[in-house]
Amino acid sequence: MATTDEFLNETHEQGLRELEDFLRIPSISSQPEHADDVRRAAGHLAEQYKRIGLQNVEVIDTAGHPVVYADWLKAPGKPTVLLYGHYDVQPVDPLDLWTSPPFEPRQQDGLLFGRGSSDDKGQIALHWQAIQAWLRTTGELPLNLKVIAEGEEEISSIHFEDFVRANRDRLTTDYCVISDTTMVAKGFPAITYALRGLIYFELRVEAATVDMHSGLMGGVAPNPAQALAEILTRLKDSSGHILVPGFYDAVRPLSEEEHRQFARVPFDEAALKQTYGLEALQGEAGFTPTERNWARPTLDVNGIWGGYQGPGAKTIIPAWAAAKVSCRLVPDQDPKAVAAALRDYIDEVRPQTVRVSLTELESHSEPWITPVDHPLIQAGRRALERVYGKAPAL
Amino acid sequence: MATTDEFLNETHEQGLRELEDFLRIPSISSQPEHADDVRRAAGHLAEQYKRIGLQNVEVIDTAGHPVVYADWLKAPGKPTVLLYGHYDVQPVDPLDLWTSPPFEPRQQDGLLFGRGSSDDKGQIALHWQAIQAWLRTTGELPLNLKVIAEGEEEISSIHFEDFVRANRDRLTTDYCVISDTTMVAKGFPAITYALRGLIYFELRVEAATVDMHSGLMGGVAPNPAQALAEILTRLKDSSGHILVPGFYDAVRPLSEEEHRQFARVPFDEAALKQTYGLEALQGEAGFTPTERNWARPTLDVNGIWGGYQGPGAKTIIPAWAAAKVSCRLVPDQDPKAVAAALRDYIDEVRPQTVRVSLTELESHSEPWITPVDHPLIQAGRRALERVYGKAPAL
Repeated sequence: MATTDEFLNETHEQGLRELEDFLRIPSISSQPEHADDVRRAAGHLAEQYKRIGLQNVEVIDTAGHPVVYADWLKAPGKPTVLLYGHYDVQPVDPLDLWTSPPFEPRQQDGLLFGRGSSDDKGQIALHWQAIQAWLRTTGELPLNLKVIAEGEEEISSIHFEDFVRANRDRLTTDYCVISDTTMVAKGFPAITYALRGLIYFELRVEAATVDMHSGLMGGVAPNPAQALAEILTRLKDSSGHILVPGFYDAVRPLSEEEHRQFARVPFDEAALKQTYGLEALQGEAGFTPTERNWARPTLDVNGIWGGYQGPGAKTIIPAWAAAKVSCRLVPDQDPKAVAAALRDYIDEVRPQTVRVSLTELESHSEPWITPVDHPLIQAGRRALERVYGKAPAL
Repeated sequence: MATTDEFLNETHEQGLRELEDFLRIPSISSQPEHADDVRRAAGHLAEQYKRIGLQNVEVIDTAGHPVVYADWLKAPGKPTVLLYGHYDVQPVDPLDLWTSPPFEPRQQDGLLFGRGSSDDKGQIALHWQAIQAWLRTTGELPLNLKVIAEGEEEISSIHFEDFVRANRDRLTTDYCVISDTTMVAKGFPAITYALRGLIYFELRVEAATVDMHSGLMGGVAPNPAQALAEILTRLKDSSGHILVPGFYDAVRPLSEEEHRQFARVPFDEAALKQTYGLEALQGEAGFTPTERNWARPTLDVNGIWGGYQGPGAKTIIPAWAAAKVSCRLVPDQDPKAVAAALRDYIDEVRPQTVRVSLTELESHSEPWITPVDHPLIQAGRRALERVYGKAPAL
């Protein structure tokens, strides 16, 4: 009998055909006209799980698109791992930027192009190939496994929290692996062991109940756009250090090992500048770009508006101006504490000639982190190193 | 024979009826469907000028709405004065805010309400009543007079500069009086002897060619909305003093007499705050609100925009952000010099991580001033003081 590795090598082409069949289903979760396709993709996936020998395969209805569940729990005493994926995809517009039809998969230069091939159907298919290889060659899996695949990830997992709450028992496991992240670079795998949290606000500065004429009120009325600029400038110094008192208090310092790991991550500044048309990078002094982006909290203006924005000139002093401001948080920052600190600070530094309101736009997202020395992360590191010939980035 | 004053008193009601007839013509210059009404108002005005005894009355075509001209030049050796007015009016929307039909004049509490009654048909009718009174009671005017009334003032006098250039000889006079300004307060007349100039720019700050994801690029990419805020904050300190080097260099200091005159102008801070819903006034330290508004240069953000402005949250770092910025200039500021100083300063203080462009949106307007001791201004002061029983504000 072939080894698991041999089996995978022998069935490589067949596995690709199976992924292609999965990719051909236009399971665009955001477009109601594709609701049947989304359901068809769920059914198709359930069929694969049955075919390879998973058990308790079920397409579970939610108030939106269904979740596919399957398990294999015949390894008593072994840990149980939950694998998460999603089988829905993003819309395909604008179509003229595709060089091949999005739902007709095409291989080129060793890559498979097609909507969903890397997000997230490719990962799901990779799971079923691996599971199938174990079951066919050894008759069992080395641990207990539960797999779920949802159909609403691209639309903010609207009903997924309800689903998880309603299926708490079914989903309880020792470990959970979310298989919807990216590789750092081609041939360079990574394990995501922490995720930044988010707070998001709308900051509105109002001076008057109506727009004013700059000839009549210039030099007399406070200007809310100017006041907004002053507040934003007080939030962050020009080197990117956030000035809100207490903002960094709970931030977990990076260990030497983490600095080393981040330094291993390939970072091509020239390519990044080229991709986005950037003149220069910018960020907090004392940290590398990778550290600033992955391990340091940020504060950014996501949008700004007020007054006359049309063509030509209009000599008004705006009645109000607003900005959207969000912060990425890192462990162990508490979103509630940071939000409160931001609120207090803005109230302190705002010009007293204007009215300021800060409205929370989304519920807080907590940052999370798994200890790097966790057995599952160590197992993942060994596995990825064996496949790629190099240790994964963390 | 009655004196001029007696004649005016006796014909007061008749004069009001004549103004009401003029106000009934909906000469809305901005609306093509009222083009005939605009022309009818010009014809109506020319008829009044003929009736009261002015000469060389003419409705002169332009590429847009016509200009009405008339003169009386039978006072050899006396100065010639040109009176300017405009017979077009603003649109009347929103109609539901009118308590009476805009083109059916109505008297209430000693005021005549109707579209154009105070801007500028009322002033034009006042001219013809005064001219008529002089001619009927003395057979002559005390000086040579030319009157023009244009029909495009409310649409930026589109063709008026061309008209003036083409009619240079006809319009040449010793003095010119523009009769389209406001009273400071009820019963408190004023003479406008200076007008602020204007420069107007669009300031655009670009970091990238596309919007970036704040999770992928936060802490790495420069944020143009933040950079724009930094630039705006560098333009003006929080007390309203403009920080552009050289900005105030040419500003003519206010004389003691001017300070005194400005102090005479009624200023009701509580009423102003109430009108606009302002929390507080704001402006350059060391000057009264009237001085700041009438005699000091200003710099204001008229509009600001960039990034995501829709409902809810979108975690982008905008590719670019922009603001409209204008300055009111006072004598003897040179718009070109101020614009150049602003350009140099922004280039100096802008974050070097972004690209900045400053586009001029309108041609410069020069500020102007007439010496307060000018004989015409002194004559105007005496006349207004005689009528109102108090010296006019300057």
